[in-house]
Amino acid sequence: MPADRQAGATHPRLALNQWTTRRWSLAEAADGCARHGVRGLGVWREKVAEIGVTRARKLCADAGVDITSLCRGGFFTSADSAAALAQNKAAVDEAAELGTPVLVLVAGGLPDGSVDLAGARERARQVLADLVPYAASAGVQLALEPLHPMYCADRCVLATLDQALAWTQPFPAEHVGICVDTFHIWWDPQVLDQIAAVADEGRLAAYQVCDFLVPIPADALLARGMMGDGVIDFGPMTRAVAAGGYSGPVEVEIFNADVWAADPDEVLATMVRRFDALIAPCL
Amino acid sequence: MPADRQAGATHPRLALNQWTTRRWSLAEAADGCARHGVRGLGVWREKVAEIGVTRARKLCADAGVDITSLCRGGFFTSADSAAALAQNKAAVDEAAELGTPVLVLVAGGLPDGSVDLAGARERARQVLADLVPYAASAGVQLALEPLHPMYCADRCVLATLDQALAWTQPFPAEHVGICVDTFHIWWDPQVLDQIAAVADEGRLAAYQVCDFLVPIPADALLARGMMGDGVIDFGPMTRAVAAGGYSGPVEVEIFNADVWAADPDEVLATMVRRFDALIAPCL
Repeated sequence: MPADRQAGATHPRLALNQWTTRRWSLAEAADGCARHGVRGLGVWREKVAEIGVTRARKLCADAGVDITSLCRGGFFTSADSAAALAQNKAAVDEAAELGTPVLVLVAGGLPDGSVDLAGARERARQVLADLVPYAASAGVQLALEPLHPMYCADRCVLATLDQALAWTQPFPAEHVGICVDTFHIWWDPQVLDQIAAVADEGRLAAYQVCDFLVPIPADALLARGMMGDGVIDFGPMTRAVAAGGYSGPVEVEIFNADVWAADPDEVLATMVRRFDALIAPCL
Repeated sequence: MPADRQAGATHPRLALNQWTTRRWSLAEAADGCARHGVRGLGVWREKVAEIGVTRARKLCADAGVDITSLCRGGFFTSADSAAALAQNKAAVDEAAELGTPVLVLVAGGLPDGSVDLAGARERARQVLADLVPYAASAGVQLALEPLHPMYCADRCVLATLDQALAWTQPFPAEHVGICVDTFHIWWDPQVLDQIAAVADEGRLAAYQVCDFLVPIPADALLARGMMGDGVIDFGPMTRAVAAGGYSGPVEVEIFNADVWAADPDEVLATMVRRFDALIAPCL
């Protein structure tokens, strides 16, 4: 336990990703974090847009909550690469104005009706290459997030940490890092070695945790669960992240109909407890 | 087109996996294959058990249909390794009596309530090691089938061709090969290199094709579709299989509620057409 942590206090590295409490506005999420002693908040562009960047930044600062990431840019694979680039430059601007260190990127899936996976991957890498100088100038680190292979077609053609590492190679680590999310990678036989490789290159830009639910719900996007409710053993991956020297926030990001339907204050209370039980001992 | 193939005839390497026409008995499936000119049939243990091994073999022989594989053994990860081994020895016996060259193995998932993925993988490898000598004596090649990572928890802890290759290393290729199924591996950034590696080792024991449907249906197990109905580009993987020297049957295995509800004869007619359009040109 860090020296500055009081007995019973919320773990200082725990951060809420605001999609976990999706029905809360950004103001409510910032207040909720303050109420539960959660020091970090990963914000979403949709929620920031409701009140504007300046007000979003001030709300979080007033609540004493760090903005740990902006979610999310990416979706690079659309047929209109110029539009994708423009949207991502806007996201970079927002991240810079919010003062958050990291813009999380989801690569995007196959365009409707396309089966050209190789082409989509190539297009994504090209838009990324076009975006990096802009982000670098703005002082925003991009964080590529590989998503679970079940989302490869409709959401993210970037499927493994190994592939993410390959995509980052042309760029300095300070400009392009990787977001490691337990939900997406837990199944990978090479996951511990890959986390070590990401860390060795100084590209471990963000660590997100949530569980993988079985059976997968009818909407596969909502298979994420509170830590402890699914099949993931958080110890090995969290220890690998810690062994890699990562000392940043650990965001809890859950897409789940039951979690969204629950009282957000209860969700935060559960999140604090589960984090202490399953994540904190391994950090 | 092979020299023995008449214009308009069904492709000689096309095989039906009988789960595609699940409501057909084995006798109906064998007759259906004969009616549509399909020369190979991958049979399932449940269907064989309904009539017995001897009768199953005779039915297929009388219909002029080769039994291309037996599905399936495996499920090695249960807490009771001895029972898993015994069940798999019985499956080997059936494969030998059927005269089929390949027994397809699905590793199994996590036992209920367990999050010990590493332990389940270790257990699976141990049961496999115990099974290999028995299968080798019986002249049956085991074919490890990596399944899509979305089934890692509840069905198959073996998730990639690379991992399957690692599992096969202690054993000669003639005893332990790999079943390559487009549905499970299409998303893998390394899939073409991995198919080549499997082929280089002489372990390409079976090739199964079907498409990946988006969105994933409410029961994720039924996300398989007829070739051309989903997001898979069959060309690159099929060409890689061909370049690796594979000259065996290509089974069409589809788990899909709509396909199961359709007239099986229509399913076979569609299968023959789609195979000609999407698979045959790449073989």
